[in-house]
Amino acid sequence: MSSLDAFVSAHAPEWISLRRQFHADAELGFTEYATATTLAERLLSLGFEVRVGAQVMRPESMRGVPPQGQITTRQDAARNQLSAAERWLAHMPNGQTGVIAEMRRGEGPVTALRFDIDALPILESDASEHTPSHASFRSHNHGVMHACGHDGHAAIGVGVAEWLSQPESRWRGTVRLIFQPAEEGGRGAKPMADAGVVDDVDYFFAAHLGTGLPSGKIAAAGVSMLYSTKLDVRLSGLASHAGGDPQGGRNALLAGAAAVQNLHAIARHSGGASRVNVGKMVSGEGRNITAAHCLLEMEVRGETEEIADYMEARARTVIEAAATMHDVAFEVEVVGQTIGGPFDERAQTIVADAAAATPGVREVLATWRLTGGEDAPFFMRRVQARGGVAVYFIIGSDLAAYHHANNFDFDEASIAMGVGVYARVVERVGQLNDPGVST
Amino acid sequence: MSSLDAFVSAHAPEWISLRRQFHADAELGFTEYATATTLAERLLSLGFEVRVGAQVMRPESMRGVPPQGQITTRQDAARNQLSAAERWLAHMPNGQTGVIAEMRRGEGPVTALRFDIDALPILESDASEHTPSHASFRSHNHGVMHACGHDGHAAIGVGVAEWLSQPESRWRGTVRLIFQPAEEGGRGAKPMADAGVVDDVDYFFAAHLGTGLPSGKIAAAGVSMLYSTKLDVRLSGLASHAGGDPQGGRNALLAGAAAVQNLHAIARHSGGASRVNVGKMVSGEGRNITAAHCLLEMEVRGETEEIADYMEARARTVIEAAATMHDVAFEVEVVGQTIGGPFDERAQTIVADAAAATPGVREVLATWRLTGGEDAPFFMRRVQARGGVAVYFIIGSDLAAYHHANNFDFDEASIAMGVGVYARVVERVGQLNDPGVST
Amino acid sequence: MSSLDAFVSAHAPEWISLRRQFHADAELGFTEYATATTLAERLLSLGFEVRVGAQVMRPESMRGVPPQGQITTRQDAARNQLSAAERWLAHMPNGQTGVIAEMRRGEGPVTALRFDIDALPILESDASEHTPSHASFRSHNHGVMHACGHDGHAAIGVGVAEWLSQPESRWRGTVRLIFQPAEEGGRGAKPMADAGVVDDVDYFFAAHLGTGLPSGKIAAAGVSMLYSTKLDVRLSGLASHAGGDPQGGRNALLAGAAAVQNLHAIARHSGGASRVNVGKMVSGEGRNITAAHCLLEMEVRGETEEIADYMEARARTVIEAAATMHDVAFEVEVVGQTIGGPFDERAQTIVADAAAATPGVREVLATWRLTGGEDAPFFMRRVQARGGVAVYFIIGSDLAAYHHANNFDFDEASIAMGVGVYARVVERVGQLNDPGVST
Amino acid sequence: MSSLDAFVSAHAPEWISLRRQFHADAELGFTEYATATTLAERLLSLGFEVRVGAQVMRPESMRGVPPQGQITTRQDAARNQLSAAERWLAHMPNGQTGVIAEMRRGEGPVTALRFDIDALPILESDASEHTPSHASFRSHNHGVMHACGHDGHAAIGVGVAEWLSQPESRWRGTVRLIFQPAEEGGRGAKPMADAGVVDDVDYFFAAHLGTGLPSGKIAAAGVSMLYSTKLDVRLSGLASHAGGDPQGGRNALLAGAAAVQNLHAIARHSGGASRVNVGKMVSGEGRNITAAHCLLEMEVRGETEEIADYMEARARTVIEAAATMHDVAFEVEVVGQTIGGPFDERAQTIVADAAAATPGVREVLATWRLTGGEDAPFFMRRVQARGGVAVYFIIGSDLAAYHHANNFDFDEASIAMGVGVYARVVERVGQLNDPGVST
Repeated sequence: MSSLDAFVSAHAPEWISLRRQFHADAELGFTEYATATTLAERLLSLGFEVRVGAQVMRPESMRGVPPQGQITTRQDAARNQLSAAERWLAHMPNGQTGVIAEMRRGEGPVTALRFDIDALPILESDASEHTPSHASFRSHNHGVMHACGHDGHAAIGVGVAEWLSQPESRWRGTVRLIFQPAEEGGRGAKPMADAGVVDDVDYFFAAHLGTGLPSGKIAAAGVSMLYSTKLDVRLSGLASHAGGDPQGGRNALLAGAAAVQNLHAIARHSGGASRVNVGKMVSGEGRNITAAHCLLEMEVRGETEEIADYMEARARTVIEAAATMHDVAFEVEVVGQTIGGPFDERAQTIVADAAAATPGVREVLATWRLTGGEDAPFFMRRVQARGGVAVYFIIGSDLAAYHHANNFDFDEASIAMGVGVYARVVERVGQLNDPGVST
Repeated sequence: MSSLDAFVSAHAPEWISLRRQFHADAELGFTEYATATTLAERLLSLGFEVRVGAQVMRPESMRGVPPQGQITTRQDAARNQLSAAERWLAHMPNGQTGVIAEMRRGEGPVTALRFDIDALPILESDASEHTPSHASFRSHNHGVMHACGHDGHAAIGVGVAEWLSQPESRWRGTVRLIFQPAEEGGRGAKPMADAGVVDDVDYFFAAHLGTGLPSGKIAAAGVSMLYSTKLDVRLSGLASHAGGDPQGGRNALLAGAAAVQNLHAIARHSGGASRVNVGKMVSGEGRNITAAHCLLEMEVRGETEEIADYMEARARTVIEAAATMHDVAFEVEVVGQTIGGPFDERAQTIVADAAAATPGVREVLATWRLTGGEDAPFFMRRVQARGGVAVYFIIGSDLAAYHHANNFDFDEASIAMGVGVYARVVERVGQLNDPGVST
Repeated sequence: MSSLDAFVSAHAPEWISLRRQFHADAELGFTEYATATTLAERLLSLGFEVRVGAQVMRPESMRGVPPQGQITTRQDAARNQLSAAERWLAHMPNGQTGVIAEMRRGEGPVTALRFDIDALPILESDASEHTPSHASFRSHNHGVMHACGHDGHAAIGVGVAEWLSQPESRWRGTVRLIFQPAEEGGRGAKPMADAGVVDDVDYFFAAHLGTGLPSGKIAAAGVSMLYSTKLDVRLSGLASHAGGDPQGGRNALLAGAAAVQNLHAIARHSGGASRVNVGKMVSGEGRNITAAHCLLEMEVRGETEEIADYMEARARTVIEAAATMHDVAFEVEVVGQTIGGPFDERAQTIVADAAAATPGVREVLATWRLTGGEDAPFFMRRVQARGGVAVYFIIGSDLAAYHHANNFDFDEASIAMGVGVYARVVERVGQLNDPGVST
Repeated sequence: MSSLDAFVSAHAPEWISLRRQFHADAELGFTEYATATTLAERLLSLGFEVRVGAQVMRPESMRGVPPQGQITTRQDAARNQLSAAERWLAHMPNGQTGVIAEMRRGEGPVTALRFDIDALPILESDASEHTPSHASFRSHNHGVMHACGHDGHAAIGVGVAEWLSQPESRWRGTVRLIFQPAEEGGRGAKPMADAGVVDDVDYFFAAHLGTGLPSGKIAAAGVSMLYSTKLDVRLSGLASHAGGDPQGGRNALLAGAAAVQNLHAIARHSGGASRVNVGKMVSGEGRNITAAHCLLEMEVRGETEEIADYMEARARTVIEAAATMHDVAFEVEVVGQTIGGPFDERAQTIVADAAAATPGVREVLATWRLTGGEDAPFFMRRVQARGGVAVYFIIGSDLAAYHHANNFDFDEASIAMGVGVYARVVERVGQLNDPGVST
């Protein structure tokens, strides 16, 4: 057993434990104050240089930031939980919860690894067969759940950092670990990329666990990530007494319902996969009042940019017409976006080789078809535009239920496997560029 | 000028001031803790016997009670605002915010007057032309507004009490002033009636100001009050990843939208007026998740019991089918009800005579067609079933906008007129039963 | 028994028989060629002067005329059935199926009676309990049915004509019998009124049998006839291969469905009754083609002109928005209209008196609330504008099912009663104007 | 130039002319009487043995047969146009319009070629830039159009037959040309397959021209043909007077509209392409009648059998719920089906080689992704189940507009190319099995 594998084997239980802590403290995008504090503290203590807040996120590029009240609530919670919070929070105003940890070992390439850390607005299952329930790490935050596995991603990031900070780890150059908030909704990557955090990067790697790939398999490149646009729609009508003056209202709730039905009925596209989802609708004031307001939180997706554009254009037409139909005003705001990202074969090969060398990996696939969206391509494209290479790979993990279900859970063994692959990727990058080391 | 008229004229500004205080402290049904405290204190100081809480409301009959959190918030606010609150709140747990004030003057009939005191979940207009805005009594409670005039009703009740407590007022028997919570949604009258508070009543009067009748007019009987049923609908589906597993979800938001569209399309009834309104829809967890939950707050109304039953039956069919259509579970809960109430000519005549004698009243109408619902008939029917008489009358008031609009406001001069009519009604009842006084 | 009553009693079976003939030959509006021929021949033989076609209908005012093919089919059928048809059809091109019969007896007022003669596009019930089925006068015209009772109206008109042509009938002045096509859809009255056929009329009467009033009752004035507007909506999109190019279509069927749902959901009006019905939708070419065309046949109604205007305005907004929503073009055409008509007390009194004198009439009501639409007011208003008086009255008739149901049928005894009332009305008008006769 | 190429070159104008004749006489599925007569006559005269009607179609397997009236109309038209029709029509009752032509040349494999011959219910464009318009072969049958290219397929079939009947053509064994009706709607293949017409077939080939592949290209195998199910939905409610008794109806049109909106909103499937289309909706009797009937003609499709099953199951749920929602009865009838068909590499190679040898073919693709449905797989699977091989290939053809558009047209040069490829395919099959001929 290599020293890396021994290390991983020894520390895996701690990483699982850390993942469970993240899971229990699940935080929504741009409010990951406890999570970010924990990460920042831990990485600082490992000897990494840590940057947070406006240093690593361009505030002007942040979209879909929650109301200040939600931010304050989580800030207060982080302060209550973690004595170290105060120090970090001062530098993370307004949802600037990104954390970057960097370490250098002599000359060599700049390698960036990206880990996303946010949770979802889902009420976690309390069924006894749901492991977080019976193993007592179900989310403490009512209605917020790590239902996509980012708690695992964050734990993997810490594990990789721990190994890389060991003297026996064999790498050189610069390693930059990007802990990104608000991947859900496609919001967090762009402000970090816009802040320039990958502008000098030679190799960029990001990964997702699960996505349908079973435990024991690694796919060296995820493909077909859907392009998507996230929209908030606000409809404004006029309240009236539903009994005494029904004709006097301008019904925003009816407009919303008409929009929802016709949005979901946008014709499929023969060019490839498309998606539309109105995931949230909040409308109305009281049962005996014609509803004056309606908020729709929605998204459209497409396998190609053309399909995504078709879906967005049709969606905008439907929304405007639904508003007109019921005499209500409307606003459509883009609050997030994900794009497809072409991967580089060089980066894919590094992952494939690293995976093949990792214990427990039974099969390495060249590619794996994804149907979700990701904002990692905002980093990937920026790296590629400057001559670097990038890939987004998949760490297989048996799932209890698919991502975003309220009983989602993954095989925690994939955390150790993720650390193993990432660690080898970093070591391999260093060797690749060392003319004296055969790869 | 009679002593009554002089009294009214002298005290009208205080009542307007009180109305503005109620307006600024607008409280939703079953959370009227500050309002109830103010009323109870004031009536006690006038010499009335005051009863509150479970003494005057049957807890088992209460429906549509807000979550405990909302109740606690308002209790805390009342405690902060009013030092007297503590004493009353101890007796008003769980939304039991009804207040009854009673006074006796020898033998004679029992007369009950009912005033409703709750506000609505509407964000009040901050337009400068909205009087509560520019005169600085806009609601302090964000999203809660006295948009129906119950602040005026409560102030009238206090004015009437003040006059009746004057030695020079000419009445006898027993007067019972019922300050009822939660008229909106048709929730507060039934638990009070079920508690027996009108079981010995000979004469029952309730009134509404406005409803389209201009200032200077009184209608001695409001007719055609709509029967209504208030329903909460809960749809429960299954969350799934909207991009990666759209077919795996069971979409409660789509079910809700289908229900909304088809509920509003329930066929009109040739037998008379009908209404349907889904006034609130709250659905979904996040934009990239198939929505697992949906709440609809709705009501149906009908000019007759048959029409209301038709509307409710059709609504239930639509809801069940919308749930089935999208494979989601559903629950329908009745959370409130209003019924029509036949009025008694004897009571109508008393009001008409009282109105005709009141200064400022330019015209007295025998009846006035209403299109809203009311839960006062729960009292009226109970009184009538025991041999008493009852009527619901209308105090004309020019409106800035119709009831339930966010810029609703009424002519404050109608407060004095309301006190004048009510006071004469009580005096007239005593005289009617006194063989020595000609009526 | 008066000679009138004896006459009615003797001829009632013939009129019932005639009604059954009309029923079996049910013809849609503007295609009543067999019915018009039968009427014209019969009235001519009674000594009436008969006018048809463009003499009594202004072609430019005709709306909602069926396609020429349907007209030709009915013309051919009339020619096959009735040898007399040829003579009349020459003067009734393009759906001009109105017939007017006039008779004069010296000086005196001009009295007009209007009888509508068209059927509906309903497939008549073949249930054995349906009298037209078991008594063998079910409609021969597949999909066309006298489901509103106009067959009875036409028979009453003939009965009245027969009596008035008797020497012993006691009337004077001019009697004009107007047999109007296309009352359904509100299409036939306006072109006849526009042709000036009531411009010299002093007294105008029209009636409907049934409408919920039981046999044995006459209501001297029908009130609250709904204003209505009949609209044809044509949506034009673009066909595409539903499998191979779904995104390439512009779906007129989806636009139609969205319009239908939102039209039926137009908010009720607190000012009185409103109605909306999309009674027909024909859309699409084939199942695997995105539908390129959609026709909606619809109507809106209102108890007042204001309500009808509100409904029409909202309907137009919904239609335009539904078209925009699905990128399809649209046209809205007004194809018919009914309006309310204020009645004259003088005319109402004549009917009431006539009814009271008619054997079999058990009760005479002053008014009866209608909820259907009628185009008779186009005549009434024109008469009233020129100083005449008019009323629309109701002949009670027990119904097997309500009007427009496929098993509608009425009590044939009401035909004789209708003749009796109408005959007395005409006689009474003559006497009213005769200074020597006391009324 | 080979003798085949010279032959093709010489006769291509005749085949184009024949295609234009088919185009002008466009006939819907199961009513192709003129087309079938023309084909049968022509093939008989070339020396083929011709079988038609129940000999080649199993009547019990026929679904979606048009009403007898439509069949009779087309039979009469065929008799009027073609003196030979009488002889063939006697054997083609009830829509049995399939034609099979067979020729034998000694021992050898049985090769079946399938050509579909039906048109679509589309009103053909009369725009001057539409070639069939300005070149005067626009459809004579109003509302029926060869908008998918089956006119070309039929012409290719005749061309192939002409060459194969030439003495100089180099093939052996048995050739069976299957002219199949009613491919649209997935109706015609199954009854022919069920009649056993391919049970002894060793090699089966079918093709489509166009589908997005440009002129000059041949794809040796079309893949991803969508599974589909064609459904007719009948909703039955109750008529009522829309003004006088709106609540008395059971509205089948509203049920239809609710079904349409929710059918088109069935969630996409992450496993691959899905489709849903309600292509036709016919509902209602008249504008002032609550609609009692509604017909929906629809289809669902899926890239895999699982997806198609998911779509059909969801569709059935939506339809049943929409009916329940509006209290109407419903029937769902399966009227057609298409299935995917795995192709055989051996057959694909034959096509690829034949194509590569055909003049004018610039590029041969191994596969081409289709997004339409096809019922050819009913033949393919039957052949494969008995040990034969099959493939469905694509003949590139530049299109004026995509299939099923009203201005669809294809490059007529592809007819000659299709004949060339098919002819070589047949010759190559013979050689393959001849041990003495090298392939």
